[in-house]
Amino acid sequence: MRPVNDAVKQPATVADIAERLGAILDGDGHRAVLGVSGVREARPDEISFVSSSRYAADAAVTRAAALIVPFDWDRACPAALLRVSDPDAAVAQVAGWFAPETPAPALGVHATAVVGDGVRMGEGVSVGPLAVIEPGVVLGDRVVVGAQCYVGYGCRLGDDTRLYPQVSLREHVRIGQRVIVHNGTVIGSDGFGYQADAEGGRAKVPQIGTVDIGDDVEIGANVAVDRARFGRTVIGRGVKIDNLVQIAHNVFLGDHAVIVAQVGISGSTRIGARAVLAGQAGVVGHVVVGEGAIVGAQAGVTKDVPAGAFVSGYPAAPHQRAMRAQAYLAKLPEMREQLRTLERRLARLERTAKA
Amino acid sequence: MRPVNDAVKQPATVADIAERLGAILDGDGHRAVLGVSGVREARPDEISFVSSSRYAADAAVTRAAALIVPFDWDRACPAALLRVSDPDAAVAQVAGWFAPETPAPALGVHATAVVGDGVRMGEGVSVGPLAVIEPGVVLGDRVVVGAQCYVGYGCRLGDDTRLYPQVSLREHVRIGQRVIVHNGTVIGSDGFGYQADAEGGRAKVPQIGTVDIGDDVEIGANVAVDRARFGRTVIGRGVKIDNLVQIAHNVFLGDHAVIVAQVGISGSTRIGARAVLAGQAGVVGHVVVGEGAIVGAQAGVTKDVPAGAFVSGYPAAPHQRAMRAQAYLAKLPEMREQLRTLERRLARLERTAKA
Amino acid sequence: MRPVNDAVKQPATVADIAERLGAILDGDGHRAVLGVSGVREARPDEISFVSSSRYAADAAVTRAAALIVPFDWDRACPAALLRVSDPDAAVAQVAGWFAPETPAPALGVHATAVVGDGVRMGEGVSVGPLAVIEPGVVLGDRVVVGAQCYVGYGCRLGDDTRLYPQVSLREHVRIGQRVIVHNGTVIGSDGFGYQADAEGGRAKVPQIGTVDIGDDVEIGANVAVDRARFGRTVIGRGVKIDNLVQIAHNVFLGDHAVIVAQVGISGSTRIGARAVLAGQAGVVGHVVVGEGAIVGAQAGVTKDVPAGAFVSGYPAAPHQRAMRAQAYLAKLPEMREQLRTLERRLARLERTAKA
Repeated sequence: MRPVNDAVKQPATVADIAERLGAILDGDGHRAVLGVSGVREARPDEISFVSSSRYAADAAVTRAAALIVPFDWDRACPAALLRVSDPDAAVAQVAGWFAPETPAPALGVHATAVVGDGVRMGEGVSVGPLAVIEPGVVLGDRVVVGAQCYVGYGCRLGDDTRLYPQVSLREHVRIGQRVIVHNGTVIGSDGFGYQADAEGGRAKVPQIGTVDIGDDVEIGANVAVDRARFGRTVIGRGVKIDNLVQIAHNVFLGDHAVIVAQVGISGSTRIGARAVLAGQAGVVGHVVVGEGAIVGAQAGVTKDVPAGAFVSGYPAAPHQRAMRAQAYLAKLPEMREQLRTLERRLARLERTAKA
Repeated sequence: MRPVNDAVKQPATVADIAERLGAILDGDGHRAVLGVSGVREARPDEISFVSSSRYAADAAVTRAAALIVPFDWDRACPAALLRVSDPDAAVAQVAGWFAPETPAPALGVHATAVVGDGVRMGEGVSVGPLAVIEPGVVLGDRVVVGAQCYVGYGCRLGDDTRLYPQVSLREHVRIGQRVIVHNGTVIGSDGFGYQADAEGGRAKVPQIGTVDIGDDVEIGANVAVDRARFGRTVIGRGVKIDNLVQIAHNVFLGDHAVIVAQVGISGSTRIGARAVLAGQAGVVGHVVVGEGAIVGAQAGVTKDVPAGAFVSGYPAAPHQRAMRAQAYLAKLPEMREQLRTLERRLARLERTAKA
Repeated sequence: MRPVNDAVKQPATVADIAERLGAILDGDGHRAVLGVSGVREARPDEISFVSSSRYAADAAVTRAAALIVPFDWDRACPAALLRVSDPDAAVAQVAGWFAPETPAPALGVHATAVVGDGVRMGEGVSVGPLAVIEPGVVLGDRVVVGAQCYVGYGCRLGDDTRLYPQVSLREHVRIGQRVIVHNGTVIGSDGFGYQADAEGGRAKVPQIGTVDIGDDVEIGANVAVDRARFGRTVIGRGVKIDNLVQIAHNVFLGDHAVIVAQVGISGSTRIGARAVLAGQAGVVGHVVVGEGAIVGAQAGVTKDVPAGAFVSGYPAAPHQRAMRAQAYLAKLPEMREQLRTLERRLARLERTAKA
């Protein structure tokens, strides 16, 4: 099954695209273009791009019909060249022309959705097929609840917020305006809290708080955000959360924080505004990562991180120091050899001294 | 959209709460309280708490109407104080008074649920909207199957077990009594097993076993528990599993083990009773983590861990030793300097000896 | 609730099984067998196996009715022995006899599924209860769409592909033939791309590409695969992906690559054919992991990995070197002691020289 781009908005040649872009065409303008792709994946009926000569090797073997390149590109390339001042911007523009169209969500409540009593909806709301909206929910204007979503009792979603299919919101979750939540994400599950008893068993500590999500937040796929033990788990304005992230109970994410895929943040930890946690990093509970701090990929944060700091490694330490430790580690075999040499020279000297 | 706590069970003042708690009130008792929150997040109409003077700095700037504090609290605080013997217990009590109410799941099978032939249900069962229960399933008394759950062919759920919405159980999974499974979790997916062929392809090894989950287990959101290749993947009594955890085929989790968020346990590994695996730790396949052992956050366990041991780092080693290695690592620059100094002194001495 | 194997295809004794296997029976053949399990978990009515004397200690205390063992097994065991040439193959065979049966998915479209306009289906298709198939979807012959799946606008699934329940495909995803996707997995969610503005906010970069999945791929439970910014996120033929894996936008996975549980691969990274990424490993964006390379568990890859290399640790380095560094790390206390001794001996010598 050869995938066919079935939604091209218009047939186009390389020359057509050069003209629409205002690019300088260098090479064969007659080939038909059906889509846009990466320089290494591109098929003969696709257009691609390289932003700098760093990708000269890829450009030299591309199968693309044409490559968008910077004005001063001087490397060999089997494809036609479209010279522009800003290749990144140009390819984004072309990609938009070829993007397969997807219909907007249908307005209104799908006949198969199950909507409880006392649900209030603003204007222009879309509730997809087989969604469940429990009683007491409030949906702002133009909210989209995707197919098969679950919106628990008493949740409130602000204007223009969109849940993709199969999102789960437990009861009493509050979400601001213009928030996007991707498929499979769970918001408001119970926090992980137990009281150990004498026999080694654990009694569940009730998790009776909520989750409060600010405006302009985006949350990726299959994320888990726990509700607070009491009070609120808080996700500040403009926060961006990638896929498969774990946010424990009572965590506080400051405005515009960026949480990359598979990060885990333990209970009651505070992440400062505009801080960035790179992929697979972890933070223990009850600490503070300061404003604008950067936590490196896979770092394990075990104590407070000052504002603006850049930490990495486990336990996380200032990145420069961690890198230096790594460099020294590489020198250990040599140091051990030096020790042995010194020992031999010293022993010889000692023998001489005694003699 | 300013979130409003729409489910306060009763209007209350700071003084009302002090009286109900039996606390000593120190300050203005007239302010109205609408909820409970953390000391840093609390709004002026909320009550909060600090358990020790460690949080004096937070207390000094809190916006809360009142703080629950220990009897001997002597730090400055703009809020009224409610002095009690056990602040943790007191705030949990108050939080319960203010917790927004959520209706209990409706008894019976929702009209939109799809229930197969030969399903047996005990008394007081609740099956939510749009759930699918395949043929041959047995649900004990008072089982709750949440909205949009999938319960595969021949599964058995013990009394008082609750599946939150959108849980997926593949066929023949057995779950004990009083088990809680949170949204988005998948139990019984195929294990990751292949036989490589000569051309680099991989043939699927059939995964025909099941999953067996004991009583009083709790499993978080978006967890994955694979079925056994054959026999059973076993989760013992009282085990607690946090969000986004991976349990591979034929894993055995001993009773009351605790598995924190994002941990991964590879195939056929055994975790002893009451062992604790901290967040993001990983364990290779076919090893044994002994009873009561502790595996530190992000640790990578590559071989057996003795009962009662505390390991950390990668590859995981006794925590004390790992910490010592870290300390020595920090001293490497100094050691290198000492080496250079010794070399210079020795060279001087050698010249003297020759002279 | 004692789980009962309710789907045994036939009652059997140990002797029956020995005969069907062509095994040499050593011990009591009269006991009834109801299932197959691991040597440590096996109940008295189950049969188990050990493949080598490495498991002699487990065999000595097994409760199984019988153990399948190699011909030359000579260790003590309370169970009857079934001697065979290949215990692994034999137990797989027996497990097949006892595997609980599960009915095949019902042919046709379930009455509760919601199927959009212009959906094309091949022969022998099965669409489960409460599934949603958006307009423009094309399903090949014998495709199985499980209960409660979401198949977005314009997706194409090749012949014999199977989606387990609650899989989510966003619009325009292309999937080849004989592909298996497990429960809770999301394919085609937006990539994590933003343009920072001067005030610290972030504008969403449109993610208008797709995902292209080759033939014979298997993807585990609760995985997230992001769509491309533009062009395609590519999963090559025969790739096997375990549970809870993150595949970012524009990633390219070469044919027959193996991605173990909880691995994260960042944007635009290329994984070569037949490369293996072990559990919880992470790879930064825009790098290349060469063909047949192996990335160790929890490794953090920060730059290109040559074809055929084996890297581990963070930052990932050749495994041999990383292991040597670990070994040297363990010797640091001793080296420090040697330094001190040398210093003392040298000081003594210096005093002698002066005297």
